[in-house]
Amino acid sequence: MVELQAAQLDSIFHALGDATRRQMLRDLSEGERTVGELAQPFAISLAAASKHIKALESAGLIRREVRGRTHHCRLEPGALASAHAWLSFYQRFWSERLDRLERLLREETARETLSPKTLSPKTLSPKKQSPKKGEDR
Amino acid sequence: MVELQAAQLDSIFHALGDATRRQMLRDLSEGERTVGELAQPFAISLAAASKHIKALESAGLIRREVRGRTHHCRLEPGALASAHAWLSFYQRFWSERLDRLERLLREETARETLSPKTLSPKTLSPKKQSPKKGEDR
Repeated sequence: MVELQAAQLDSIFHALGDATRRQMLRDLSEGERTVGELAQPFAISLAAASKHIKALESAGLIRREVRGRTHHCRLEPGALASAHAWLSFYQRFWSERLDRLERLLREETARETLSPKTLSPKTLSPKKQSPKKGEDR
Repeated sequence: MVELQAAQLDSIFHALGDATRRQMLRDLSEGERTVGELAQPFAISLAAASKHIKALESAGLIRREVRGRTHHCRLEPGALASAHAWLSFYQRFWSERLDRLERLLREETARETLSPKTLSPKTLSPKKQSPKKGEDR
């Protein structure tokens, strides 16, 4: 994992914390865009769009290139990879949850296969029911 | 991928955009912590720490439980998984870059193998055994 300076991760996550900027990144995933093209889908001024683009640029999420009078923007995947890598550290936590859920589902399926009577409530046999929680034995 | 409301992703990424809050999450990855324990490593007031914890909580990144007079915090992996999933969309971009880099390195290695002139003089010797030091012939 590329260990970034805390300040860099701060600015990456800060830039991602805005739906307009995330949409701009999504647009850029389809290819290069001019500043005007990036601003176009939003009901915001070009100045406001430019501020968003600057936030993305200073976080290293996009690169801007000036050709003639036009500013062209391009996705910079490295910064996204760093944020992704930071989050990947926690992957085991949600994986563990999914594993538990999968195990429960498997056990549920196994029980249903073993006792087909429990498949529909109509055929449910009352004999097989286990004592309810808190019931005295 | 779990598609979250934009506002939820906003608050998740916003909460992650601060080194103190990221460190708190890292601490919570080792187990449950009280608010006091979470605040302890930082030179900040308990009120400031509490504000950070609230940001994490409202983003759904942690869960707080009150037992007696103590607030216990725990990692909530679902929100981290959502941010990770959002970023995974872009994985192909940095994968493509890594693939290109790998291909270049492979080509470089292939060239070096084909033209042994570029190898170091030590590995150029075709002899399998060099005479031992001090051995007379």
